[in-house]
Amino acid sequence: MRALVYHGPGERSLDAVPDPQLAAPTDAVVRIDTSTICGTDLHILKGDVPEVRPATILGHEAVGTVVETGSAVTTLAEGDRVLVSCITACGRCRFCKEGHYGLCTGGGGWILGHTIDGLQAEYARIPFADTSVHHVPDELTDDQVLFLADILPTSYEVGVLAGRVKPGDVVAIVGAGPIGLAAILTAKLFTPAMIVAIDLSPARLAKALDFGADVVIENGSENAFARIMELTDGLGADVAIEAVGVPETFELCTELIRPGGRVANVGVHGHPATLHLEKLWIKDVTITTGLVDTFTTPELMKLIAGGRLDPTPFATHRFELGEAMEAYDVFADAGTTHALKVVLTGHPVHLPAAAAKEAVAVS
Amino acid sequence: MRALVYHGPGERSLDAVPDPQLAAPTDAVVRIDTSTICGTDLHILKGDVPEVRPATILGHEAVGTVVETGSAVTTLAEGDRVLVSCITACGRCRFCKEGHYGLCTGGGGWILGHTIDGLQAEYARIPFADTSVHHVPDELTDDQVLFLADILPTSYEVGVLAGRVKPGDVVAIVGAGPIGLAAILTAKLFTPAMIVAIDLSPARLAKALDFGADVVIENGSENAFARIMELTDGLGADVAIEAVGVPETFELCTELIRPGGRVANVGVHGHPATLHLEKLWIKDVTITTGLVDTFTTPELMKLIAGGRLDPTPFATHRFELGEAMEAYDVFADAGTTHALKVVLTGHPVHLPAAAAKEAVAVS
Amino acid sequence: MRALVYHGPGERSLDAVPDPQLAAPTDAVVRIDTSTICGTDLHILKGDVPEVRPATILGHEAVGTVVETGSAVTTLAEGDRVLVSCITACGRCRFCKEGHYGLCTGGGGWILGHTIDGLQAEYARIPFADTSVHHVPDELTDDQVLFLADILPTSYEVGVLAGRVKPGDVVAIVGAGPIGLAAILTAKLFTPAMIVAIDLSPARLAKALDFGADVVIENGSENAFARIMELTDGLGADVAIEAVGVPETFELCTELIRPGGRVANVGVHGHPATLHLEKLWIKDVTITTGLVDTFTTPELMKLIAGGRLDPTPFATHRFELGEAMEAYDVFADAGTTHALKVVLTGHPVHLPAAAAKEAVAVS
Amino acid sequence: MRALVYHGPGERSLDAVPDPQLAAPTDAVVRIDTSTICGTDLHILKGDVPEVRPATILGHEAVGTVVETGSAVTTLAEGDRVLVSCITACGRCRFCKEGHYGLCTGGGGWILGHTIDGLQAEYARIPFADTSVHHVPDELTDDQVLFLADILPTSYEVGVLAGRVKPGDVVAIVGAGPIGLAAILTAKLFTPAMIVAIDLSPARLAKALDFGADVVIENGSENAFARIMELTDGLGADVAIEAVGVPETFELCTELIRPGGRVANVGVHGHPATLHLEKLWIKDVTITTGLVDTFTTPELMKLIAGGRLDPTPFATHRFELGEAMEAYDVFADAGTTHALKVVLTGHPVHLPAAAAKEAVAVS
Repeated sequence: MRALVYHGPGERSLDAVPDPQLAAPTDAVVRIDTSTICGTDLHILKGDVPEVRPATILGHEAVGTVVETGSAVTTLAEGDRVLVSCITACGRCRFCKEGHYGLCTGGGGWILGHTIDGLQAEYARIPFADTSVHHVPDELTDDQVLFLADILPTSYEVGVLAGRVKPGDVVAIVGAGPIGLAAILTAKLFTPAMIVAIDLSPARLAKALDFGADVVIENGSENAFARIMELTDGLGADVAIEAVGVPETFELCTELIRPGGRVANVGVHGHPATLHLEKLWIKDVTITTGLVDTFTTPELMKLIAGGRLDPTPFATHRFELGEAMEAYDVFADAGTTHALKVVLTGHPVHLPAAAAKEAVAVS
Repeated sequence: MRALVYHGPGERSLDAVPDPQLAAPTDAVVRIDTSTICGTDLHILKGDVPEVRPATILGHEAVGTVVETGSAVTTLAEGDRVLVSCITACGRCRFCKEGHYGLCTGGGGWILGHTIDGLQAEYARIPFADTSVHHVPDELTDDQVLFLADILPTSYEVGVLAGRVKPGDVVAIVGAGPIGLAAILTAKLFTPAMIVAIDLSPARLAKALDFGADVVIENGSENAFARIMELTDGLGADVAIEAVGVPETFELCTELIRPGGRVANVGVHGHPATLHLEKLWIKDVTITTGLVDTFTTPELMKLIAGGRLDPTPFATHRFELGEAMEAYDVFADAGTTHALKVVLTGHPVHLPAAAAKEAVAVS
Repeated sequence: MRALVYHGPGERSLDAVPDPQLAAPTDAVVRIDTSTICGTDLHILKGDVPEVRPATILGHEAVGTVVETGSAVTTLAEGDRVLVSCITACGRCRFCKEGHYGLCTGGGGWILGHTIDGLQAEYARIPFADTSVHHVPDELTDDQVLFLADILPTSYEVGVLAGRVKPGDVVAIVGAGPIGLAAILTAKLFTPAMIVAIDLSPARLAKALDFGADVVIENGSENAFARIMELTDGLGADVAIEAVGVPETFELCTELIRPGGRVANVGVHGHPATLHLEKLWIKDVTITTGLVDTFTTPELMKLIAGGRLDPTPFATHRFELGEAMEAYDVFADAGTTHALKVVLTGHPVHLPAAAAKEAVAVS
Repeated sequence: MRALVYHGPGERSLDAVPDPQLAAPTDAVVRIDTSTICGTDLHILKGDVPEVRPATILGHEAVGTVVETGSAVTTLAEGDRVLVSCITACGRCRFCKEGHYGLCTGGGGWILGHTIDGLQAEYARIPFADTSVHHVPDELTDDQVLFLADILPTSYEVGVLAGRVKPGDVVAIVGAGPIGLAAILTAKLFTPAMIVAIDLSPARLAKALDFGADVVIENGSENAFARIMELTDGLGADVAIEAVGVPETFELCTELIRPGGRVANVGVHGHPATLHLEKLWIKDVTITTGLVDTFTTPELMKLIAGGRLDPTPFATHRFELGEAMEAYDVFADAGTTHALKVVLTGHPVHLPAAAAKEAVAVS
């Protein structure tokens, strides 16, 4: 089959590789119908995630169709349409039992496109399939559910829920890239009184308004701290969601929240930040971090099915899997292309698995 | 001044009575600009609330203007525009400190128009004023905030919050009178996947659709239990809110919730219900009851100010205080008049207090 | 092998039956080293649980040793010492993912000794073994962990946690049988200010004092409601835990709690109760019901290992499996024998499985 | 009257000063029967709290007797025995209504011995008396309740409750001074499986064992991180409570907690710390800070009255108010004197207020 393969820092190619096979009774093999590229994939390509070994297929977000199941799989059958989540859950360890699938110690967690082959391919082997994929109702399209594989539950769980957004709150979201936009979209589920988006880029702030921000602050040209204080009668925001991943934006979050407020960090950080405990010790703040668990995926899917949540505007560009190299270029150059998420469709013609194996792609 | 006075079961009149005076350093006197009539006032008139003594001025919901404050009042000044809440809070007792103002043991709780004179009058004495009224921002009209005095926080706190409505839930609201409609309006703050309103009256169900119900069930002509099961794949509703106050509707709520579901009783009951423990013991249900505390009034006011919540459609009829007798007739005959809430405006001409005293009205 | 078999209402015998076999890749076969009898087993024998078919082996609480595992079992190996819980969890359904194993819709829930063969036997087949048994640390004896199979998590989850017992509370526990005593033991984990046990039997109340009750009330000879009010300055208990299962005790619980209090029903009920909504609607009460989920089993096991919790006093009588008929008699006649829990030891000599098969016992 | 007065950094004296007078209708004047010195008083004397102006009476923890009340005080009368809390609550502002008295914006918060005269004196004026003092039951001695004025609710609310200690947890408490010891004492209310105290001083660690720690780690001579990992099978502590107030101990807390763990900062910090987000972003941690609100004071008082909590071992030294200068010396030199808390008794002979005024003390 064809797959987008990592070959070390800066090196990727669309390769012909062997089809995946069941390796454990709890596995399933899924035909990938639609997948997408994550900012994390770009980090891997920069060499920032050294545990990804060369020759690994990338990708951890997809919608597909079950083609084969192991003997222990009880809830899936060939032909089932499923969302494959970025987080794999063994379902047996202490953390999985607590719903903390992201902390799975039984062989799951974030493994797809990380420690094992991922989903930017024609087929993928999915470990612990019973507890790691979600049935997709017939009435929902791939595009409607695709972003439930990572970006929506990430912003919702690690940002909105961890930050305990509630009706009437002022919510400051620092960073208006895809994660920040997903935070805006899902924060609205709790009807805050005001959502304020903060970013350096006017283009991203324009998107923030489209996704539902009430106020935008162009950080740098405006003083974000001063503007938040002005908007809140000098009190500060109830919740600040960090959606960038650099020390400056985290520190801004700790400044602009009110006494008793919550800072929810969603950004992936490579460097330490300074925590101004000499100011914060008395301020009754709560700071949270976390990887997504995807425990809210069923809830978010119900909201999409009920017409309450529409993630399709994230899909700004669309490619066939055979164009995956170009898709990466477009996604990586978001500053120019204004890409939010690029959709990769796997099977323009629904070839049988055997035939698909023969399709050859060159990087 | 003029006031609507209770004279025993079935007896009310618009009387000339003495102006209220400060009686404690924590009191304020408020000029009533706008008030409304509650279903509870009708209960009082039926004689169902015997602790209301004849000669009591009725009413516990108003917007007004502070005209005088006791020496201990620190947060209010003459001329301040305030919402007077149905619940008075001493602010000192154990329950007030816990935010359970409705359970106040220090002289508060529901006292206005109940154990002391109420608000359907030109002026009213408000005990524990610092902790029992809310400043109204200039940009909000009386109509926008009036229903924060009782109906909105009641349905929100005792129904929506006690029932722990959350994004994606199926919420069944049994009863589509004003309390049920306020439950619909405030349940939407948490973006349930589906709100189902159940009532006997097609007219009330039409209102439920206007207020945001997704599905309505005409109980009696339809089998509400069967319809809910059909809508939820046989599971039942996540939350059921009782907004009527008779045993049958309460029992229906306990039937139509799913295992693990919540029943939040808001209705005022005069009779016991049957609790089918032989079915419910194993069903993981939570049942809650309660009087409103009004602790969410500031939050709801922020949502109105932010344009997220609009209670003005409750105001179906409008009268001057001098027409209060007719207003009661219209409100009591809601089946015919389709009244939701009637608004009483106190001061068509803004007379000074001294002059107002001389105005005489006879029932 | 030998097993205690139900043959219809009133009929039980110790029979020679075939050894259990693996039936699914997620199964394990466990040699039962120690088991016990539950009050529910007596209900089954009375014919109160008609879904138990004749020829079913009874029992849902045991400590044993894994002898065989299906191909999909990843966390267990032959020789592992395990606690077999009364609740089986498929680990895949929506309720299992939420930790509500008792509501499992994927083939689990309470099935052992109910809809499939149980644990009062030499061996048992355990479905969904990975998610339904718990490893037992070497340093803990069978007696120390046996009551974690049902009684302790039941009283803790459905009584103490659902009732939100917290430091300083007054907790009234109605019923001082094994479930009520386990509620006393586990309520103490939250350091209430006072635990009050209420029962008809002076002998059970003496046990309640032994298990840690501060005050006991002999209901009938004393007026329990009046005594609770006296102990709480007329306010009522913060939490009431129903541990009997008849309408009268449930109704007592709703009377003796304070405004804002919680009633947690643990008792198994066969009849409806009267809910006095005409008094309770205004009282801010929370009433909960539920079957145990056993999600707290690991937490309780840590407390036993840390010396914080000692359930061994429940073991009042001890028999070999061959004496199971007599053990039932002693347990059923607790009024005379003062039995709390009877321990059945399966393997006085540790015969190899093959040899054990040949042991024959006749009722 | 006599009072311990701050005269600028390094300067304190026992002075004759005028008796306090009522200044607002919500004030009370309290005769101080017993008071104590806080670590914060030493900080003030070092000049670390510049908002304390010279000539301020120090002290914010006392038990006393009401001698006079303002006209608006409704819950206190002359002769009432009261605990005066370190936090004054206006009872009217948004934060007070939410129970966040420490964040009071209506004139309260920490003001006693800070922005107004404090309690190390014969008498004190207590603003907002109705909402800022607590009645002391007759059966409790001053010593039993004195430490409820600050140290116990501080460690309980900001450490134990913010850290969500629960039964079965491993709790690491970094710092075994009075605040750390109070954290040990109150963490035990939730029956953790293991309490580990970490400090540099063997003498303080010996005290930690006395107060209920299960394991102590002498930081420096032992590697605290490695030892915690050893005790927790490499997982880390469930909760870490910072009770020192320097960057190193805070950073240690963030290292030694498990994925999903909670760090509760109680220490008063003068400098920023480094937050290793490059490790923590994925670790699902919650970090909290805060000043005490004292909302748990009634709960803790019930536990003392019920014999569940005994703070009297904190009282290691005892002086009359006239010996306050020496008391400070002893408390400041805790390394040598092993003082935990020094008790100052105000009235060795119960002089009438008039006579007491004449007593003169010289620094």
